[in-house]
Amino acid sequence: MKLAIDAMGGDYAPEEIVKGVELARDQHSDIEFLLFGQTDKITPFLKDNSHITIVQADEVIEMGDEPVRAIRRKKQSSIVLAAQAVKEGKADAFFSAGNTGAVLAAGLLIIGRIKGIDRPGLTTTLPVITKKDQDSFVMLDIGANADSKPANLVQYAVMGKYYAESVMNITNPRIGLLNNGTEADKGDKVHREVHDLLLETENINFIGNVESRELLNGVADVVVTDGFTGNAVLKTVEGTALSMFKMIKGSIMSGGVGGKLGAAMLKGTFNEVRNQMDYSKYGGAVLLGVKAPVVKTHGSSKAETVVNTISQIKSMIDTQSVQNVISYFDDQAKKAANEEENA
Amino acid sequence: MKLAIDAMGGDYAPEEIVKGVELARDQHSDIEFLLFGQTDKITPFLKDNSHITIVQADEVIEMGDEPVRAIRRKKQSSIVLAAQAVKEGKADAFFSAGNTGAVLAAGLLIIGRIKGIDRPGLTTTLPVITKKDQDSFVMLDIGANADSKPANLVQYAVMGKYYAESVMNITNPRIGLLNNGTEADKGDKVHREVHDLLLETENINFIGNVESRELLNGVADVVVTDGFTGNAVLKTVEGTALSMFKMIKGSIMSGGVGGKLGAAMLKGTFNEVRNQMDYSKYGGAVLLGVKAPVVKTHGSSKAETVVNTISQIKSMIDTQSVQNVISYFDDQAKKAANEEENA
Repeated sequence: MKLAIDAMGGDYAPEEIVKGVELARDQHSDIEFLLFGQTDKITPFLKDNSHITIVQADEVIEMGDEPVRAIRRKKQSSIVLAAQAVKEGKADAFFSAGNTGAVLAAGLLIIGRIKGIDRPGLTTTLPVITKKDQDSFVMLDIGANADSKPANLVQYAVMGKYYAESVMNITNPRIGLLNNGTEADKGDKVHREVHDLLLETENINFIGNVESRELLNGVADVVVTDGFTGNAVLKTVEGTALSMFKMIKGSIMSGGVGGKLGAAMLKGTFNEVRNQMDYSKYGGAVLLGVKAPVVKTHGSSKAETVVNTISQIKSMIDTQSVQNVISYFDDQAKKAANEEENA
Repeated sequence: MKLAIDAMGGDYAPEEIVKGVELARDQHSDIEFLLFGQTDKITPFLKDNSHITIVQADEVIEMGDEPVRAIRRKKQSSIVLAAQAVKEGKADAFFSAGNTGAVLAAGLLIIGRIKGIDRPGLTTTLPVITKKDQDSFVMLDIGANADSKPANLVQYAVMGKYYAESVMNITNPRIGLLNNGTEADKGDKVHREVHDLLLETENINFIGNVESRELLNGVADVVVTDGFTGNAVLKTVEGTALSMFKMIKGSIMSGGVGGKLGAAMLKGTFNEVRNQMDYSKYGGAVLLGVKAPVVKTHGSSKAETVVNTISQIKSMIDTQSVQNVISYFDDQAKKAANEEENA
């Protein structure tokens, strides 16, 4: 398989991106890497170019650039050229740690939507921290679309199913709808309608409404939400965890020697908690609903996250995650056409 | 002042409610308490009835009762009778730890909306845990209305302002709109419109959009949100904090003797963190937008929370929090009428 990598995106690009690609190359002999970016900036960090090809991209889309405009104007940027390589079949997936909006716009406008998907949704994997037999869950949409219609969320559920099967390696994952209560009639108009539509959706294991209080307890494998709420909930998880870490640290520091000694003894525990809450270990956020894996990691990504993300992309390609979604919606379209014909 | 208390609501009613009321009575000599409930169940726990009057209520609205139907059918319930006492001017505020939906319905249907408020909003006080000069913030709506229109959120902002002034004792509190990014154009259609309306709203200190990641860091004094998102975010804060406590505990327990010793040494820190995250110390959730304070505490409330909530209600009454909202919307209506006349 071939991956198109934006070597210029992210706070530590190109150094950490190149490092990560080399580490991933050493792990996966079946991957060819196309590194898009400014050759003179990439080569100083590239130790061994086996299975790695640099593709010159003169321009760079900066973090502050307005996404859609940047995609249209910076035709020679690493993001645009990498996405075009995927569109033209020269690569199987696109990965960037750069400008999120530009990566999403490139996925949507250059690589293009799957037939039957109205709005691609952004997906992330989050930790389950209090359950022994479940390590993580996926949630979408976490912010690709602030305004969502019921049909969008139904499509998220289907895409989430195939994605979870692919990256979490579970069959028939439990799909929950994020709502204000577990009862069927909870929520606003959109979510009540989505609940009813999901009950009728074929080939998914819909377990009903789930509440955000239970997410980290593993209440579902796939959590479906509108992009506005999903984004708010994701940022609340991050913010609460970070604030609690800060508070614990502050409390220890302002305490006496006993507290500091206690903290030293609990170093293992704190590392474990921090490691469990750190969801970059699962890779990046995936734009589901476009014709190939489009994966975005945090701008602060270092080599380790790049390696994890490449493993995640490899799983998606190995298990034909995108192809499964395409087939599902093809089948649905055929069924609808047949029903119309027979009517 | 006189408070109408539902003595029968909550997991530990009437015992803990009565206990809490007696403790509050001992602190505040200027409060008269009307305890609504089944006299024979209340009296065994009542040690001293000075400043406390029991008002017999034959019926009890249970936690599982359908709220609006319960309000309509159980006319002799403690919730209905307590709310009626407020409506009739026999009491200045209504407090319950019972069925949330029924308490909100009683506030809305019996005590009634303030003129100019389309939808009352539910408000809670949450901790700020990483800032020295700010202890807490208020957020509304946390779930009274799943479906919200822009005008509802503007009204929440005004009510939040007077509430924060009243209970947090700060003048001109910073009002932020919970959104998917801090830029003015972020969010879905509703939130973009709210942002623009808040810029034009008189007499409020609108600081723009705020993100849920920053809530516990004290990014605003009043956080305005639609009831669907607010509910999801509140439950995410609770769930993340609880899951992290569980994980830390689990990790310590499964660790060696050193870890357990370390945990013993950090007991002070853990207690401090737990105490800071416990927002029942700020009292209960307040239904803002009705003609008198209507306050609901968690079903698991014990005497201490009852005492805190009564102090919170006393602040609202002392500072004429509700009257300020009534005056604001009266003024707005007069201005609008004048403008129409002069047009």
